[in-house]
Amino acid sequence: MLIIGIAGGTGSGKTTVVRKIVESLPQGSVAVIPQDSYYNDQSELPLEVRKQTNFDHPDAFEWPLLAHQMEELKAGRAIEQPTYSYITCTRLPETVHVEPQEVIIVEGIMTLYDKKLRDQMDLKIFVDAEPDERLLRVITRDMAERGHPLEMLISKYRNVLKPMHDEFIEPTKQYADIIIPNGGNNDRAIEMMRRYILAALEEQQFRKTLQHEK
Amino acid sequence: MLIIGIAGGTGSGKTTVVRKIVESLPQGSVAVIPQDSYYNDQSELPLEVRKQTNFDHPDAFEWPLLAHQMEELKAGRAIEQPTYSYITCTRLPETVHVEPQEVIIVEGIMTLYDKKLRDQMDLKIFVDAEPDERLLRVITRDMAERGHPLEMLISKYRNVLKPMHDEFIEPTKQYADIIIPNGGNNDRAIEMMRRYILAALEEQQFRKTLQHEK
Repeated sequence: MLIIGIAGGTGSGKTTVVRKIVESLPQGSVAVIPQDSYYNDQSELPLEVRKQTNFDHPDAFEWPLLAHQMEELKAGRAIEQPTYSYITCTRLPETVHVEPQEVIIVEGIMTLYDKKLRDQMDLKIFVDAEPDERLLRVITRDMAERGHPLEMLISKYRNVLKPMHDEFIEPTKQYADIIIPNGGNNDRAIEMMRRYILAALEEQQFRKTLQHEK
Repeated sequence: MLIIGIAGGTGSGKTTVVRKIVESLPQGSVAVIPQDSYYNDQSELPLEVRKQTNFDHPDAFEWPLLAHQMEELKAGRAIEQPTYSYITCTRLPETVHVEPQEVIIVEGIMTLYDKKLRDQMDLKIFVDAEPDERLLRVITRDMAERGHPLEMLISKYRNVLKPMHDEFIEPTKQYADIIIPNGGNNDRAIEMMRRYILAALEEQQFRKTLQHEK
């Protein structure tokens, strides 16, 4: 089994990279764990307080749960991945049953932030894009797909997205094994990852065979 | 044949990455072309002018010659690589005979700078390290190995190395397929490159075999 962390800011092309890698690997061999399923439950807090949640701050995540569930998967046990509602800003009663797979991808803005999580990874990737390119993608996506007014976006970008990115996301680049610039449109980088993953899995398989023969 | 460009600032760990990649590939399958063999000849200029050469500026290189020799190698023809003397700041009469190999690595601070050169590359790598780490390496190397006094180094770093890096080297990151942080001590990144190179060569071989069979 191979645990891969894929981090990168909002609009970096992270999701596209994850999708392309999953598509490039044998069907049914990958489980993707989105970090934003692990936002704190907060159901004990009044709605007004919950509505103030800063989703771009590391304190918003339940890190121990994420690290624990990764350990479970690594040990070959299935997990019940939590699900989250941005409407109530609490965890939903439903969970997602995730079986351990040959490749586990943890993806999210801060997957390289927590040391305990990082230490479980066999490969750490940071997907990067220039700040203005990221902003353009955020604007396009949030306006076109989510209908957010531009003024709101600009204020959110200036007051939350940018400072949180610079303080908590950007510094995690230093932990990456490789940085992928030009995020989603970088087929050579994706091909390199694919080759590496397949070779690492083959090697594991080979070692297992050797052990069985002993 | 695979043309690989490896760029990165002074002290980034670029040379270590190149050495580790060469060591990881089959012996005799790689030719390394150092960009700093292609500094302008300058023998027409008086010594005083030559001594002022800014070796960290793109104008110091004879780009057309480098691009041309890469084309020659790509076409399967050997080249006579120039050699350079930092004492006289001119090209030496000797050349290095370089035969085309399965893998050609062009390495140097600005190998991703020139479009004509970049367009010939099958893989573009930028080796990165934090600025203070790079400075530490420059200090250690230049003082211990070259006996340069610290004051001279500091002034050279402030007045030449840093501004040239920020203006000409750093921006070429955008052209890289992958960025390798923590330069020379990043064995996973090197393993990824190795896997990619071997697979690409195998594929070329496979295609050649198919063509012969036609």
